[in-house]
Amino acid sequence: MDYTELIITRRSIRSYDPDRPVPEAVLRKILEAGRLAPSAHNNQPWKFYLVSSPLLLEKIKMCYKREWIRDAPHILISAGLRREAWTRDYDGYNSMETDVAIAMTQIILAAANEGVGTCWVMAYNPFELKEALDIDDNHQLLAITPLGYPKAGYQVPVEKGRKLLDEIVEFL
Amino acid sequence: MDYTELIITRRSIRSYDPDRPVPEAVLRKILEAGRLAPSAHNNQPWKFYLVSSPLLLEKIKMCYKREWIRDAPHILISAGLRREAWTRDYDGYNSMETDVAIAMTQIILAAANEGVGTCWVMAYNPFELKEALDIDDNHQLLAITPLGYPKAGYQVPVEKGRKLLDEIVEFL
Repeated sequence: MDYTELIITRRSIRSYDPDRPVPEAVLRKILEAGRLAPSAHNNQPWKFYLVSSPLLLEKIKMCYKREWIRDAPHILISAGLRREAWTRDYDGYNSMETDVAIAMTQIILAAANEGVGTCWVMAYNPFELKEALDIDDNHQLLAITPLGYPKAGYQVPVEKGRKLLDEIVEFL
Repeated sequence: MDYTELIITRRSIRSYDPDRPVPEAVLRKILEAGRLAPSAHNNQPWKFYLVSSPLLLEKIKMCYKREWIRDAPHILISAGLRREAWTRDYDGYNSMETDVAIAMTQIILAAANEGVGTCWVMAYNPFELKEALDIDDNHQLLAITPLGYPKAGYQVPVEKGRKLLDEIVEFL
């Protein structure tokens, strides 16, 4: 799809068809968009967990207390590697969160481009999620998203409800 | 441009034509891509400073000690508003950096879609930049990028040099 049309039409999806998993080739194409993302010093301090197996999926969904996520056939979890991320000498700023968010944004848009629904989720219980995934301390869990096709008849929200351009930009 | 082609072909540009400013309508279209970005709880905790006036541009460029940035006709600075960003109850995690990176990613891709070059820059001197922009403490400066047309004859790097998909994804 044309990029401009993609960012105008993309919506968060909160209703998934549980009986329609996303084909592996499509999942790989979506993840490829994250692989290609730029990062500070090209360090690529990221790791993605694509959960599709029913048992683990069930555990992951328990970490986010919303009914609508139950039907998602896949959940993608992004993690950052703090020690592999670039650090600024001046003040010790570490680029991990920004780097992972760039890759995740490219993934989320790639999913929309394939007709696959997503929804940025950060309001999960981070302690439960870390335990469910059983990962080490160098991996910091960041945003997660379901991946799946919207349920038939699901009405996506029409309005994005954003601030005006002149409220968020200063021309200097 | 088609989204998949856009993310495959987009490169960081480190050579700008100083005599070819980007028309205001194009700049606004590029910034619009940031305005449309999703953010946690739709809080939109971001502010963008588009610097084009010669005096301020000169000051901003002094905060990043690389010769190549001197020719850029515009510099875009992204800032996050920590207090306006969403915070997770469980652990106090604040979404500001992720939110701003999402918007900035959409902007960077929108620029490439318009044939306008960008380069994520984080290695600036944050103390000097804050002073040059004269902003208050609620605004945390994040990534910046030049905006401009590549100099005629500039050869963009061919290879992205990324890890393989199976190095960064676990299918569970």
